[in-house]
Amino acid sequence: MDKFMQAAIDEARQGLAEGGIPIGSVLVHNGQIIGRGHNRRVQQGSAIRHGEMDALENAGRQSAQTYRESVLYTTLSPCAMCSGAILLYGIPKVIIGENQTFLGEEALLRERGVQLDVLHNNECLHLMQAFIATQPTLWNEDIGE
Amino acid sequence: MDKFMQAAIDEARQGLAEGGIPIGSVLVHNGQIIGRGHNRRVQQGSAIRHGEMDALENAGRQSAQTYRESVLYTTLSPCAMCSGAILLYGIPKVIIGENQTFLGEEALLRERGVQLDVLHNNECLHLMQAFIATQPTLWNEDIGE
Repeated sequence: MDKFMQAAIDEARQGLAEGGIPIGSVLVHNGQIIGRGHNRRVQQGSAIRHGEMDALENAGRQSAQTYRESVLYTTLSPCAMCSGAILLYGIPKVIIGENQTFLGEEALLRERGVQLDVLHNNECLHLMQAFIATQPTLWNEDIGE
Repeated sequence: MDKFMQAAIDEARQGLAEGGIPIGSVLVHNGQIIGRGHNRRVQQGSAIRHGEMDALENAGRQSAQTYRESVLYTTLSPCAMCSGAILLYGIPKVIIGENQTFLGEEALLRERGVQLDVLHNNECLHLMQAFIATQPTLWNEDIGE
């Protein structure tokens, strides 16, 4: 397993252990994780701290150049908000754990030239399947449904 | 002047007074402001707290139904990230102060059925023109350029 996707999964599991939604993400620049995070809807009562957003926030203020040399890893296909953040900062490549439980804005990202790699990772899939089965209302809230 | 756009401008001015980027936003539901905010890149070292995101975060966790009955006011045309958040939560209407200093993802929002009203407000315009003229590097950072 790619060590960066493993780090994103570790973040997702940490979120789950905190009673949160198990989605994690890391931002990687020059082979180093510069930001890592997980969904904090439950933990912080947050409407904007999806896993990817949390990783970007924890990376802090970065130059446009840094974003354009970075790769974002996320355990789940990025929603419209997180996809918009990817486009804002011009992140050229996103590695996605799975897109079976939720298909985000992959078509838009591809159309705008972002390279996507969907791993169809079973650990990511099972984390979300189990979570959605047990907490469907919370999950729907997180995706605005 | 619409009192809600005035509230968004008040937020922008508060951000400026704090040494930040003068963009403000309010989320309105049933004629009441349920979240208000401004850009906090400087104040919090934040990569994700654009004005609209800050207003959404400060509104806290809301139901899908609430978002779908809400109107978002913002002093500046929403960037890809903020537009993505609007799409995620299905906010049906956005009132924009100005889109001359920065044109965000208005075409995408319209294509997805979001109603936009651009006010071409001079106060919003002058706030941003003055800011961009004095702090171009900070402004470019905020829009990933």
